[in-house]
Amino acid sequence: MPVTQETLAANVLRGDVRAIARAITLVENDAPEAPALLSALFPQAGRALVIGVTGPPGAGKSTLVDRMTAHLRKAGKTVGIVAVDPTSPYTGGAILGDRIRMQAHATDDGVFIRSMATRGHLGGLAAATGRVLTVLQAAGKDVILVETVGVGQDEVEIVGAADVSVVVLVPGLGDEVQALKAGIMEIADVFVVNKADREGVDRVVAEIESMLSLAATEDGERPRIVQTVAAEDQGIGALLSAVDAFQERAQRTGLAARKRRAHLRREFEDTLRERLMRVVRQRVLEPGEVERTAERLEARTLDPFAAADAVIERMKI
Amino acid sequence: MPVTQETLAANVLRGDVRAIARAITLVENDAPEAPALLSALFPQAGRALVIGVTGPPGAGKSTLVDRMTAHLRKAGKTVGIVAVDPTSPYTGGAILGDRIRMQAHATDDGVFIRSMATRGHLGGLAAATGRVLTVLQAAGKDVILVETVGVGQDEVEIVGAADVSVVVLVPGLGDEVQALKAGIMEIADVFVVNKADREGVDRVVAEIESMLSLAATEDGERPRIVQTVAAEDQGIGALLSAVDAFQERAQRTGLAARKRRAHLRREFEDTLRERLMRVVRQRVLEPGEVERTAERLEARTLDPFAAADAVIERMKI
Repeated sequence: MPVTQETLAANVLRGDVRAIARAITLVENDAPEAPALLSALFPQAGRALVIGVTGPPGAGKSTLVDRMTAHLRKAGKTVGIVAVDPTSPYTGGAILGDRIRMQAHATDDGVFIRSMATRGHLGGLAAATGRVLTVLQAAGKDVILVETVGVGQDEVEIVGAADVSVVVLVPGLGDEVQALKAGIMEIADVFVVNKADREGVDRVVAEIESMLSLAATEDGERPRIVQTVAAEDQGIGALLSAVDAFQERAQRTGLAARKRRAHLRREFEDTLRERLMRVVRQRVLEPGEVERTAERLEARTLDPFAAADAVIERMKI
Repeated sequence: MPVTQETLAANVLRGDVRAIARAITLVENDAPEAPALLSALFPQAGRALVIGVTGPPGAGKSTLVDRMTAHLRKAGKTVGIVAVDPTSPYTGGAILGDRIRMQAHATDDGVFIRSMATRGHLGGLAAATGRVLTVLQAAGKDVILVETVGVGQDEVEIVGAADVSVVVLVPGLGDEVQALKAGIMEIADVFVVNKADREGVDRVVAEIESMLSLAATEDGERPRIVQTVAAEDQGIGALLSAVDAFQERAQRTGLAARKRRAHLRREFEDTLRERLMRVVRQRVLEPGEVERTAERLEARTLDPFAAADAVIERMKI
């Protein structure tokens, strides 16, 4: 590792904001420096509490994350925020008011905010997010909040890999609970019904409860449902208590260890898959081979499985 | 390939509904029979027009797909529908009325409808969808409609890989156009403003136009914006004309060929990556090695890159 990379890693480890930003850019884009950097940071990562926050667009996730951050800061904790949400203010999707509101933390060195593009990541969005989390964990943040929109498979995976997964719903989005069932409901450790001063809050709570009554949990405990009005700073303390209570219980029952272990297995396999593919591109595939293969696929004189197996055959694994 | 697989492939090729259903189940779950089956079907696939339909929940995509199907059937075309949308009636997310409405096609052998779970696919949702498309194309469907919710990265990829990508918006979803910008706006070949009898339709159209005015296109032509009221069967003919016009132009300019080639390159690389990883699991990784590696990662005595590189080293590629 060149001296500059060693310095960069050291600067990340002591929490330097510019170093963190630069390191994240390198690992997010899977730059050539990324592996050595991550190898240097990984031993120091893994101590932060990672909270995933997901829900449909318009549920008020960003405001909620903003208020959670303020509460955590008051409690003396440092916070990292990763927004992998195309509708998030950090990624430029939402209205200007949100963006300005987040500026409140812009001058606070105890908060590091990073948005991520949802496309174009080598090895997928979930893998890229994992690398970014490693940097923030190594930088010593106490709590990391990861915000996504809970619709896509990648986004569900990201939040599911957090220590605690918070699913945010709001009254009045129609058949929302049912619509979300398919993916994100099953990963929820804590439910939030935000904008709880609106009509229909009882109905959403009842829908979640009815859904939960059908699900079996490992220890018989069901996810807690917390009502918040994030815009007016209501219920945030209760939410953070529910998060803590879940994590405490998960540590006691061994669930926390199992989640973390499963996440690390996946991180190893994802890394192996991508680095393997990179080596194959460099050393096994001939120049222009992918293009020539695509031509034969187009002519339908070859199929993708036969093409892949021919390459693997050559490798004599 | 055992005889039953040969029969299955033959039955798919002659359009047998049960064979198609069984073949899709096999390839969606990446069953052991899948590679041989896909190898048999692939040479006959690739002739259908694939139309991707995406947009936020509540935009009326399912109703639109339903009406497009009815119009295509009237024009004598056979249709395949793949719904990779957790809010779609086919996957069980939406209200009962939608589901009943789709039954209209249930007795029509010229329409094959298939829903896909959004999670748990080997190699990801986009790769699984590609395999399902191969089956439907080989079964001789003239047009295949792929419906997704346009938020996640996988979903955007799926629709982006279609011959023609249709993005559906509706009036009155607030900063919707802006919110969606991050991902799906750039893949749109045709825009639909559905529920165009509602207030605010002019504003949505103006927002799309203003966004398009900033974007450069290869040949200076901009995506067409079509207004529909799918529930009342209005504008569907105009939408299908816009789709045809795009595809005709794309074929003339070579864009269609470039899109298809790019898609086939990705299909090859995705298949190679997954089969490579499978071979490594079978022949390179020792029993329990993933678990032991995860333990060392947890203890932070090893990092994922070093762990992956050690495996690759052993392979002597």
